[in-house]
Amino acid sequence: MNARHPRSARPVDRESAGRSGVRDEPADGVLTERSARIVAAHKLLRRARRAEAGEFLAEGAPAVAEAIGAEAESPGTVLEFYVTETAGTRHPELARQAFAAGITVTQVTDRAAAALTDAVTPQGLVVRCALPTTTVSDLLATGPKLLAVLVRTSDPGNTGTVIRLADAAGADGVIVAGEAADPVNPKAIRASAGSLFHLPVVTAPDAADLVAQLGAAGLSVLASTGYTDLELDQADRDGILDLPTAWLFGSEAHGLPPSLIEAADERIRIPIYGRAESLNLAAAAAICLYASAAAQRRAG
Amino acid sequence: MNARHPRSARPVDRESAGRSGVRDEPADGVLTERSARIVAAHKLLRRARRAEAGEFLAEGAPAVAEAIGAEAESPGTVLEFYVTETAGTRHPELARQAFAAGITVTQVTDRAAAALTDAVTPQGLVVRCALPTTTVSDLLATGPKLLAVLVRTSDPGNTGTVIRLADAAGADGVIVAGEAADPVNPKAIRASAGSLFHLPVVTAPDAADLVAQLGAAGLSVLASTGYTDLELDQADRDGILDLPTAWLFGSEAHGLPPSLIEAADERIRIPIYGRAESLNLAAAAAICLYASAAAQRRAG
Repeated sequence: MNARHPRSARPVDRESAGRSGVRDEPADGVLTERSARIVAAHKLLRRARRAEAGEFLAEGAPAVAEAIGAEAESPGTVLEFYVTETAGTRHPELARQAFAAGITVTQVTDRAAAALTDAVTPQGLVVRCALPTTTVSDLLATGPKLLAVLVRTSDPGNTGTVIRLADAAGADGVIVAGEAADPVNPKAIRASAGSLFHLPVVTAPDAADLVAQLGAAGLSVLASTGYTDLELDQADRDGILDLPTAWLFGSEAHGLPPSLIEAADERIRIPIYGRAESLNLAAAAAICLYASAAAQRRAG
Repeated sequence: MNARHPRSARPVDRESAGRSGVRDEPADGVLTERSARIVAAHKLLRRARRAEAGEFLAEGAPAVAEAIGAEAESPGTVLEFYVTETAGTRHPELARQAFAAGITVTQVTDRAAAALTDAVTPQGLVVRCALPTTTVSDLLATGPKLLAVLVRTSDPGNTGTVIRLADAAGADGVIVAGEAADPVNPKAIRASAGSLFHLPVVTAPDAADLVAQLGAAGLSVLASTGYTDLELDQADRDGILDLPTAWLFGSEAHGLPPSLIEAADERIRIPIYGRAESLNLAAAAAICLYASAAAQRRAG
């Protein structure tokens, strides 16, 4: 919420609104936090409503820019772009690009924009997007070389961070398996820094079924776990990392379930050279995914 | 704060207090949030007071356990151990170990324990510690092979995460350079998961002076930056990572200052294989520190 305009919707400057491609609808002004469409969109901050509606919200310039970019490749990704006058003036290119991509651009008040995010400092830029309909089967049909699988991870920040990491490492997708943090949770989207719109992120309700499916698709399933003798560097030297790979990462608190560790093709440990008890999830994922990316590139 | 005992200091159970090694002082009961010593310790949640007093607080079982362990190696590390009756009953070994190490163990009320942390859910276990007096010169005199240097990083969670990572990678120390988040900030201590007590963490007010000092000590200074052609894997193949190394990592928002990138011996880039714009600080540190640890071990 903007402290300078705590209650009043700002009047529409139609000339600048027109210049930046902003559409002011309804015709009598910008949408407020009481407008039916904003009230409906606000409910997407809850996971149950996202699943029901098949939609989610992404906030802030980086995520909005990547979402608009994704619309060109996958039409139907972005359903509506909400922007405040201030944010529209600061980022005129976003409204222009959205307009060019045929996305409905809707001017909203500061309070309406604040109602569409859980961020402490709302950015005034929010896109309402369609939940991806890609399934694990769709993803596997593309012949992926490198996948990151998060099993029952509970912190959405970690989920977003691993999506960003997987993108950086050139992975072909991220699978969120079992009861886990929602990858389109607002915190996950912030942590993914736009990467959510760069690579397929799919969910798999049953992690055991998933591992079978990954194996059937010819992927080598590697479990990242401290409870094994095979160190990452040795696995690299043995050529294990050269193969098409799905890495399994467990929750920060509990690691991977024993049954999945067992079901994997290999169990691999990142050595702890000092006295730390363990690495956190994001660090482990960074090291494993980059080791695989480098090995696969060396192997050609 | 404990909802079940919102205002009253609980009476001391002298028998169980004796058994768990808890000292109830003053003699008439446990310390409350109004006791002069708790009021004084509470002020250590502020950075300025920590610097003035030369002391800091560490909360929660993992940090307390590591701090008590460090006391054996470096007497004077832990000045006092504050514990609630509930936490003392849950972790009797901590009070016993503290008592055996000659640490003053002080029973406190739930409200007093809550006053000694910024955590939403106080753990009832807090140690008051002496700020380390180790200087950069002391650290360099030990002939370190691997150091992590954080330059003007502003998020204490990142600082703690990199301390944990440096510990896991077997680094010999962490240096926090320039105006940066305090490594003994409560959030940094939580993120370090006890590693703060495993390896020297020192501060250097002037980052440029520090780089000169690192070079004079024979360390290869490597700047982690996206603005260079030399990729990490190439640097590894070239043997650059085999040398005694100090890695420089810049702030999440701004990276390293250009003058420091220039002053480093090498500028090294983690390749981005996908479409992510960058890696976050912790991921970059994980990949660089582990690459160095592995290279140095291979080189012997």
